[in-house]
Amino acid sequence: MKELLLIGIGAGDPDYITMQALKALRRADVIFLLDKGAAKHKLNALRREICARYLEGHTPRFAEGMQPEREREAADYRASVDELNRDKQAVFEQLIDEQMADGEVAAFMVWGDPSLYDSSIRIIEAIANARSDLSYDVLPGITSLQALTARHRVPLNSIGRAVEITTGRLLAEGWPQGVDSVAVMLDAKDTYRGFVGQDLHIYWGAYVGTADEILIAGPLDDVAERIAVTRLEARERNGWIMDSYLLRKSGTVRN
Amino acid sequence: MKELLLIGIGAGDPDYITMQALKALRRADVIFLLDKGAAKHKLNALRREICARYLEGHTPRFAEGMQPEREREAADYRASVDELNRDKQAVFEQLIDEQMADGEVAAFMVWGDPSLYDSSIRIIEAIANARSDLSYDVLPGITSLQALTARHRVPLNSIGRAVEITTGRLLAEGWPQGVDSVAVMLDAKDTYRGFVGQDLHIYWGAYVGTADEILIAGPLDDVAERIAVTRLEARERNGWIMDSYLLRKSGTVRN
Repeated sequence: MKELLLIGIGAGDPDYITMQALKALRRADVIFLLDKGAAKHKLNALRREICARYLEGHTPRFAEGMQPEREREAADYRASVDELNRDKQAVFEQLIDEQMADGEVAAFMVWGDPSLYDSSIRIIEAIANARSDLSYDVLPGITSLQALTARHRVPLNSIGRAVEITTGRLLAEGWPQGVDSVAVMLDAKDTYRGFVGQDLHIYWGAYVGTADEILIAGPLDDVAERIAVTRLEARERNGWIMDSYLLRKSGTVRN
Repeated sequence: MKELLLIGIGAGDPDYITMQALKALRRADVIFLLDKGAAKHKLNALRREICARYLEGHTPRFAEGMQPEREREAADYRASVDELNRDKQAVFEQLIDEQMADGEVAAFMVWGDPSLYDSSIRIIEAIANARSDLSYDVLPGITSLQALTARHRVPLNSIGRAVEITTGRLLAEGWPQGVDSVAVMLDAKDTYRGFVGQDLHIYWGAYVGTADEILIAGPLDDVAERIAVTRLEARERNGWIMDSYLLRKSGTVRN
């Protein structure tokens, strides 16, 4: 048998790592690295930093998979994600077959939490269902939204109300019905700008929990342009950006 | 100056604690305990367990506040919460005035994450705004929903879709528009039972991450009654229950 651990490592500060995650990492023989693109170097550096800092001398080996690029502007978003995930599955299987021996434990150090806008669980489940030599477990981690609200020192929800967690792509279709708080991830297109004039408050953050952290909060009408400019500059300066934001109807900001 | 730390300790397993939280606790002179009701003993035992296990010999003192009970069946939910929070604020202020000296650091060990369905941030913000001798910080923690999805090994969202985080009270008003996944906290009334026959899948868990953990998942029509009976029995056996669940439209379960 081979054992896979999908470990949420938190989003940003290496110290977002949980004790549960550290104990799991200390059991790992090998750590699979799969990131791609501009953020890859930063993310892998964070992973190595966590291991160097907290594994108490345990030194798992690292094995890198070659991860395909997603076609960002594909007309059919869902189809392109499906295609990406099929490719990813092939990469995962190759790592499992070639980079770990029977009886070994392999860890995926997943940015944030494996349960939120991450495909690892679905892919591993599909692989494990198709073969009998694989067990797997999932460990939660601090998401970028939790880092965001903590650093802004704001609740995610207003009292007794619901919150919608969504993507920039979905938010572009309109404000979700029935909620006063909307947390947005994966927005490459400054979608918040389309909501100026609707009496919203925004809490925005990039690289939250890291040395590059930028936080901007205020009435959306007042800060939207500043966020857009800051965001663009930061992405150009760093070569990548990881940001998220919380929008709240202004009447409920102080509740 | 006095410094307050609102520290998310995670929901369930003591090992959900983050390194960031542990480092903050090692700076604390005093830990304020505020829970009430049937879960109080268990929650405080968890807090002391975390301190005993991971503070490396640092031993903050504990100071207990007397927390008022909320009138659960109050007709005006929002008014009763407001009233409770005013009472809580008085308790917090008393602790700050009487149980910590100038220059000291006090920690609140908040179950889960202070940003999700917890009033501590709002209360501390109100107190800090009204006096000049107080600084505060917020540290995120693993929520019960993250523990739930990790233990069920399921994503919170389906691919590219939104998730609504809500309460039993709000869910009773109907399925939220525009989402296929709904995560429910604070449901004392088995609200999921009202959604039988709507082709939903449920992932339910109680005491997740603890020795008492119970997990049930399946088509809601098949498992709703089993969850209701299990829930009632567990609450009677333990004197309290801490549970949550994820509902998903069945067509998207495998996505």
